[in-house]
Amino acid sequence: MVKKGYKKDRSSSSKKNIEELFKDMGTKVYFEIDKGAFPEITFPRRSIKNIIYDRDLKQYVLGLDSVKRSSQNIKHIRPFTQLIWLAFFVNKLVYQGKTSTLRDVFYSAQAYDMEFVDQGESNEIITDLEVVLSRAREDFNVYPEERSAIFGDITIEYTVPGYEGKKLNLASHPDGYLIGPSLSTADFVDTSAEMVLAVEKGGLFTRFVEENVHKRYKALIINTSGQPPRSTRYMLRRLNQEVNLPIYILTDADPYGEHIAMVIISGSVNAAHLRELTVPSGKWIGVWGSDIIKYKLPSDPLREIDIKRVHELKKDPRYSGGIWQKELDVFLKIKRKSELEAFAKYGLTAITDRYLPEKLEIAKSL
Amino acid sequence: MVKKGYKKDRSSSSKKNIEELFKDMGTKVYFEIDKGAFPEITFPRRSIKNIIYDRDLKQYVLGLDSVKRSSQNIKHIRPFTQLIWLAFFVNKLVYQGKTSTLRDVFYSAQAYDMEFVDQGESNEIITDLEVVLSRAREDFNVYPEERSAIFGDITIEYTVPGYEGKKLNLASHPDGYLIGPSLSTADFVDTSAEMVLAVEKGGLFTRFVEENVHKRYKALIINTSGQPPRSTRYMLRRLNQEVNLPIYILTDADPYGEHIAMVIISGSVNAAHLRELTVPSGKWIGVWGSDIIKYKLPSDPLREIDIKRVHELKKDPRYSGGIWQKELDVFLKIKRKSELEAFAKYGLTAITDRYLPEKLEIAKSL
Repeated sequence: MVKKGYKKDRSSSSKKNIEELFKDMGTKVYFEIDKGAFPEITFPRRSIKNIIYDRDLKQYVLGLDSVKRSSQNIKHIRPFTQLIWLAFFVNKLVYQGKTSTLRDVFYSAQAYDMEFVDQGESNEIITDLEVVLSRAREDFNVYPEERSAIFGDITIEYTVPGYEGKKLNLASHPDGYLIGPSLSTADFVDTSAEMVLAVEKGGLFTRFVEENVHKRYKALIINTSGQPPRSTRYMLRRLNQEVNLPIYILTDADPYGEHIAMVIISGSVNAAHLRELTVPSGKWIGVWGSDIIKYKLPSDPLREIDIKRVHELKKDPRYSGGIWQKELDVFLKIKRKSELEAFAKYGLTAITDRYLPEKLEIAKSL
Repeated sequence: MVKKGYKKDRSSSSKKNIEELFKDMGTKVYFEIDKGAFPEITFPRRSIKNIIYDRDLKQYVLGLDSVKRSSQNIKHIRPFTQLIWLAFFVNKLVYQGKTSTLRDVFYSAQAYDMEFVDQGESNEIITDLEVVLSRAREDFNVYPEERSAIFGDITIEYTVPGYEGKKLNLASHPDGYLIGPSLSTADFVDTSAEMVLAVEKGGLFTRFVEENVHKRYKALIINTSGQPPRSTRYMLRRLNQEVNLPIYILTDADPYGEHIAMVIISGSVNAAHLRELTVPSGKWIGVWGSDIIKYKLPSDPLREIDIKRVHELKKDPRYSGGIWQKELDVFLKIKRKSELEAFAKYGLTAITDRYLPEKLEIAKSL
């Protein structure tokens, strides 16, 4: 089934919105100064006490506490000035269609005699700006260094300078396409895919491509490269929301793998101020702790630190029900972990020929 | 200048060669058994005493010592059997046009009741097979998980199953193409590029693409993602040997950055048994320790462990002359390190507008 006509206005409208948000922010400061008042900025507090779990949204969100940065307060002048400078700097980035990294922002400040003692301080201010604008830093063109990859039959149309209107089909390079700024901001034009399979590892990604999983299961395949960078989580959300594709996540059978799936589905504590990075309908289809037993997989003992991690996750409200808590208990019971590659015990294609179809069938009832 | 007609037979001929090598290896064992002798395999020893620096090749190579694995010796039966199984397994991979990872090989062994106590043991045997065949494991389709990326005006033609004869221009996706099995085995068809710029970091890679470095300097841009995986070093070598492109390497100004450049140019100690992974004519064009002073770059103090690393490298024969030793001495003198992104102090485009052309000019005299 070929779907057409996705909501295509996202990237252009989001660019317009971010520019409007900057304009609003600047206008407010300008008018306060103009009328002789000390400018100030108020935004939700990010401290741990103000991060609460929203059971309806199934993600962490910020509560009602707020912080005020006032230029009247001598203690606030430094972070206030840094925040205003950052807004000025990234507004220019967006206007020029350039992107930047967290590291770039730290060094760029020096071109303006803006002081940050270290990158930790500039990262904090970048997160503050995210909170002020309620937008992810990728929306103001600050991208991570890490990239994950995508492969499959979907045609995209670029919106970045020099490539506007150009189209690309993401099945044309079997090693996969990096999910960087251009792909993150591209529009989706056309696809025959009926699902997205997000896998934790590059080796599996290549195996899936070689075994024609994209054709046999009409799937887009995404390599998250471990815990995916936020631009990849955003891409997963867009494929789910704009193209209506269900998202299935395959990880190693250990608490870290389970948490990769959880963060894709329900977001992270650190990004409690953002609502655009989750896929609430996403499904973690394995490898579960119980699959280690069911499929007699080669496994290793959980280390002490792994068990500690399981106990931490057990207390996390995101893990309070269903498969999540159940599989944590399995880890505690069997005290073993395994990996996606362990299916190679049954031959290199066992994971695509046997395991994947069985798990996709089970996923229908999750 | 558009170059055409590169030596295009590499990947098909290398595939033929590897199959012949396996056939020779198997035939030898078969005939030994047939005439009632215990089969054995002899290959160069990889111990540190047999790894010597070849000043002409400018790389580490294996000396004349050899080891024999004989099925007559009870202590040898285990590694001998593992080696023969591995040759059988990867020969099938090559025949089927499938790829695998180091991890996959470890687990796949269990499908054949072949025992490896851990992945360390199977990795050792894979390296043994490299030595036996004098070929990199990528030649028998065992690839690393990590991938780096390439971007620029070069058209490739795939040789992998399902994509044979298809062409792709690597400037068509501005986030870059992953250098995986398909790209590694593709033939080069056509390019307008006159050089390759290998950069250590994803952020810089994106910056270079955005600033049109590929057009302004007629360059292919490669993101090595730190120390590049061997498939990327092999790609750099092929671009140098087959397409006659000079290779310029840009890294952070610290001993690890300098060593990334060194390994691309002169190979690693671990791969002393391979000759196809070096680019002897490659040039490290910065960021040098002396550039920290020259360009007044923001910098951090070298940690104790960094200084220890500099002293180690100073004793390495690959570092015995020229810029290599000189810049190590600069690190010891100034005891500071810096990063590629530090040029953002002069604006985001300072590195492409000012630093890069100056360094490319200097490179002519290196």
